[in-house]
This record gives sequence, structure tokens and C-alpha cells, in this order.
Amino acid sequence: MKQEQCIELAHGAGGKSSRRLIEQVILAECRNPLLEPLADAAIIEWDKTRYALTTDSYVISPLVFPGGSIGELAVNGTVNDLAVSGAKPLVILSSWILEAGLSMEVFQREVKAMARAAKAASVIIAGGDTKVVEHGKGDGLYITTTGYGLVEPGVNLGPHRVEVGDKILLSGPIGDHGITVLLARGEIELEATLQTDSRPLWPIIEPMIRLEPAAIKWMRDPTRGGLASVLNELAHDIGFGIMIEEESIPIRQEVRGACEILGLDPLHIASEGQFVAVVDQKKAVDFQKLLNDIPGGEEARIIGVISNKPPGKVVALSGYGGSRMVDMLIGDPLPRIC
Amino acid sequence: MKQEQCIELAHGAGGKSSRRLIEQVILAECRNPLLEPLADAAIIEWDKTRYALTTDSYVISPLVFPGGSIGELAVNGTVNDLAVSGAKPLVILSSWILEAGLSMEVFQREVKAMARAAKAASVIIAGGDTKVVEHGKGDGLYITTTGYGLVEPGVNLGPHRVEVGDKILLSGPIGDHGITVLLARGEIELEATLQTDSRPLWPIIEPMIRLEPAAIKWMRDPTRGGLASVLNELAHDIGFGIMIEEESIPIRQEVRGACEILGLDPLHIASEGQFVAVVDQKKAVDFQKLLNDIPGGEEARIIGVISNKPPGKVVALSGYGGSRMVDMLIGDPLPRIC
Repeated sequence: MKQEQCIELAHGAGGKSSRRLIEQVILAECRNPLLEPLADAAIIEWDKTRYALTTDSYVISPLVFPGGSIGELAVNGTVNDLAVSGAKPLVILSSWILEAGLSMEVFQREVKAMARAAKAASVIIAGGDTKVVEHGKGDGLYITTTGYGLVEPGVNLGPHRVEVGDKILLSGPIGDHGITVLLARGEIELEATLQTDSRPLWPIIEPMIRLEPAAIKWMRDPTRGGLASVLNELAHDIGFGIMIEEESIPIRQEVRGACEILGLDPLHIASEGQFVAVVDQKKAVDFQKLLNDIPGGEEARIIGVISNKPPGKVVALSGYGGSRMVDMLIGDPLPRIC
Repeated sequence: MKQEQCIELAHGAGGKSSRRLIEQVILAECRNPLLEPLADAAIIEWDKTRYALTTDSYVISPLVFPGGSIGELAVNGTVNDLAVSGAKPLVILSSWILEAGLSMEVFQREVKAMARAAKAASVIIAGGDTKVVEHGKGDGLYITTTGYGLVEPGVNLGPHRVEVGDKILLSGPIGDHGITVLLARGEIELEATLQTDSRPLWPIIEPMIRLEPAAIKWMRDPTRGGLASVLNELAHDIGFGIMIEEESIPIRQEVRGACEILGLDPLHIASEGQFVAVVDQKKAVDFQKLLNDIPGGEEARIIGVISNKPPGKVVALSGYGGSRMVDMLIGDPLPRIC
């Protein structure tokens, strides 16, 4: 495929362009068995113990939005990459790129937000770095966090485990975060009480692992690029089809409304506090019931199934018997949402 | 001490302002036993094995300079934070913040530089992230790398181990990196063939650990803020004095010349391929000899001693019998050198 001459916003949006950039530039130069899965976290085995290691940069704009802020998101986003890897989050490192002229109050507020989020997620902030760039060479502040955790015994996740008939389980309503940030920018006029869904996922993932780790086959959090992008990446990796029932996917009215006005597909909108899992069909109902009984898992639903066809594609079935292909996000309708 | 109202470049320079920002804001909110040493890497013990974890953001300008570039520096800087913690570097993660409009060629060049540096340092690039910000909200590219390594058995480093009489060992000439970057900016006219000293330090630190790990008591790499800042931090932490012999400190003629012209103290100028260690006095000569026989350690010297006084301060003795107090860097004469 042709490569662009310049970096564009879409390269950071988590959709097709992001994937191509990573495959054609980063993977091409740095290919190795640890990197190759392009998973949310790298799994490093030592003395029969498996550790998960992940890093993410946060460049969200604005820094504060209903229900959260960059300092809090930088913890939750990273601990969730560990959680969907089946790893109990233990430690966070944070590296700050500050723009000269940033008010000390804003910096302090975000350090406090990070400390609060770390406490809520039961992780320790063990280190970090602080750099300052000239005024005009940044945008207030950027944070990069690294997460380190311990993969639970019995966890075995990966596209290679996914089989036809497995069910797709979603932890709750999608798109809250993306639409909240969009509205916070004030670019569209819409009355909504929506707030980000940013939260640590380990408290709802751990009970699933305690119930039966081997029945969980694959997990991701649908952040940049939304549910559509993570499911398309999965379909591409496994070569099977994915059928989802559109009506079973929980989407809040505010998210649906904003998407209609803007011509966006809610399946492309980022969540920051949900996960999607592929689970053994025989255990799917048990997992859903388990989640529905836990605070924060009440709206979990089985939303689809792994099917023989169409190979490598995602299809959404509507309540009226129709169907549509669900593609990955192309372009970037919502830049800098994390 | 009074706190500034805004973030300034000096807050990122590695000197007094940086230390104050970290102590008054980050440590104040996030205090815990893992973070508190404010060391180059956090040491995490699990099942009697110690792992070292570190993260650093790289915002160096320009992106390319004689002998190196940001992609290569982002590997060496981070693996060296592991090495001076006595940890064999194993794995690197890299997170990129790209400015829209950056040429794809530049991005590819730096990914290649990173891959080469990782190979040279025998570390695997196991994961990462890529974000894009609008044109004008960055400066080409920023990289944050995370390093993960294994602390060697027998290693026990920390200010608590330092005693009066211990010797200070420096691995080679200081200031090459800082002055190279300054000259690369073209802000001063000076003919010099200088290049960055950026390199992985593990190949010269590992043999010292093999010789006698217990005799190495403390180690740092004198990057931002230079040798003066790391020694002042040590003096502050141990409460003893540090006496260094100015004439024993290897400094290249080009570095000395540039510092004279600019009114800078070479002890404040960053290196990216040197370390300073406090070692048992009985083993100091053995360590120096060992280093002098290894490629890359030829210019290692014993440069000073831990003394009873002046408590918490660093004093430099000149060849003529004079002495001067060596303070931490104040302000930022050389912004964005890493």
C-alpha cells in the first residue's frame, strides 16, 4: 500500500492509518516475537512468572473534561492495558512533557489527579521523568505512563485461541469517553449530561479470571478507533468472521444522538472504561451474569459470535434482519481523545 | 521555598529547579517507598528477583546532532538508567508523540536509529504507542522510552551505603553531549570535531559488577545538570562532603574551550555515555584498572573522595592548592539537550 509522505492526524487515531504506520515503519524495523502480537501489553516471562509491561502517551485536549482529566486518564488508560492482558496492575511510571508557561496550578492539579487515580486503581507510582519544552512547542502538558503488572496464573489470551462459536462479551455502554471529549471542546452545540467512562477495569476483570481464566480467550479495551477497530483487528488476525447484533450493544442516548448529528458511527467512538472479550460459548452466560452482579458490570452484554464467514470481516446485524459491514475507522473525526 | 507560578525551562534542566519541582509537587502528592529514593530506576522485588523499571522522555532539539539522534539517544539514555542501577537491560518500550506534518522520512530514520541502538545495547523493543498532535502543538517528535532490566545478584546501591573515605570513580570525559548539542544548534561559532558520547554503559559496568558488586555503593549517569548536579544530590542525601580534584576530571579541549567562551562550568554539562560511581576505597584502584583495560573505559579516573566536611556540599580542589564550592545547576543554559 502507498505510504504517505507526512505524518497526519489520522496516523494517531487508532484506525487503519495507525495500524499501517505501525506495521510498515515500526514493525518493519523492530520485528521480534515480543513486539509482533501488537497487543496492549508485552508479556515477559521470567522464572515461570509472567509480567506485563505497557506504555502509552496521553495528548488529550482539553486537559479537563466532564468526569475526568489527563492525569487521571493517564493512569486508567495504562492500568487497563494491563487488565485486558489478564495482569493485575502493580506499578505506574509517569513521564511529563510540560510546555513552558503552563500554570503551576494546572500541573499540580494533574499530579493530584494522577495520585488519586493510582490510589483508586491500587497501583504505586514508582518513578518518572519531567521535561520542559519552550512555549509554543507543546500544548500545556503531555503525559506518558508505563504500567507493570503480574499476569494471573491460568490466563492465556491471544487471537490464536479464538474459535468459531466463541461469544463476544462487552462490559458496558460504548462511546461515552469520545463523545464527552468532543462536547467538551465546544465544537458542537448539544445539551448532554454525558461524562467520560474512564475507570480502572481490573475490579471487573479479576472476578472473571477467578471464575475460569481458561474460558477467556482474548480481551481488548475499545479506546481509539472504538469497538469497530478492535474487532476488525481481531477478525484480521484470526481469519474468521465476527457477527455482532447491533441492538445488543449498549449505547447511551446522548452518544447515539451526537453520532447522528455528526454522521459518526458509535462503533468508532472511544471508550476508556470498557472491555470486549471473546469467551468460550459454554461459559459466556456465566460470565455475563457474574459481571451483571458486580458494581460497574451491570450493563455487560453478549453482543456477538465468532463465525465462519465472512472471513476476516466484521458484520453487524440489525433488528430488522438487515446487515452491514463494519469497517475500521478511516481518517480521524476525533483527534486527541486520549 | 517559594514556588513559581508557571513552569519554566529550568524546571526541566535537571538542576535545582527540577529537584524542587519533583520534591514539592510530585513527591508531595505521590510519596511512597518505591518513588522516594528519586533514583534513576525503580527497583521492584518479586520472588527474590529484583527488576529495575525506568522511563524518560526525550525532547532534544535538534533531532540529529554529530554522533547521534533522538531515536538512538532514547534507547541509550534509558538503558543507562538501568545500567547505573546495576541492572542488565532487557527490554525497551517506546512511545512517540508526532507532530502532524513531520516528514515520514524523518520518522522512519528515527525508528531505524532506535532499532540499531537497541540491537547495539542488546535490548528488545517489546512495545510502544504512537500519538499525533496538530501541527504547531509539538516540535517534530518527542519519544518516551521505558526500560526494564534485571538487577544483578549482589548489587546493593544507594546513598545509605556511602561512607567517608569511599572513592569517586568517573568513567571518562564529561560534557561531550551537552556541548555537541549546543554547537549543533549553530548558536555559537566554534570549530570543533566534537560528537555526542551517547552509548550504552552496560558493557563497561557489567565487568565491575562481576569483579565485586558489593564494593560498588552508588552509581549515576551525569546527564542533565552534569556531574555537579549528581554529586550535589549525593552530598545532600548522605550529609557528608564530597571533595573532587579538578585536574583529575577528564574534559576534552573542545568542551573546555566552549565552556570558557560561554561562561559555563564543564561540571554542569551533560554527558550521555559516562557514569560516576562511589566505590569502596580498597577496591577503587582495581576498578579503575579494570575499566582502563576495557574498550570505552580507557579514560576512567578516580576523581575524588567522600569526606567528613563540608557536610552536604561538593568542593573542587584545583592543582594550585585552591578550592571552590561546586553548586547545582541553576537556571537552564542548555535547554532540551535530552
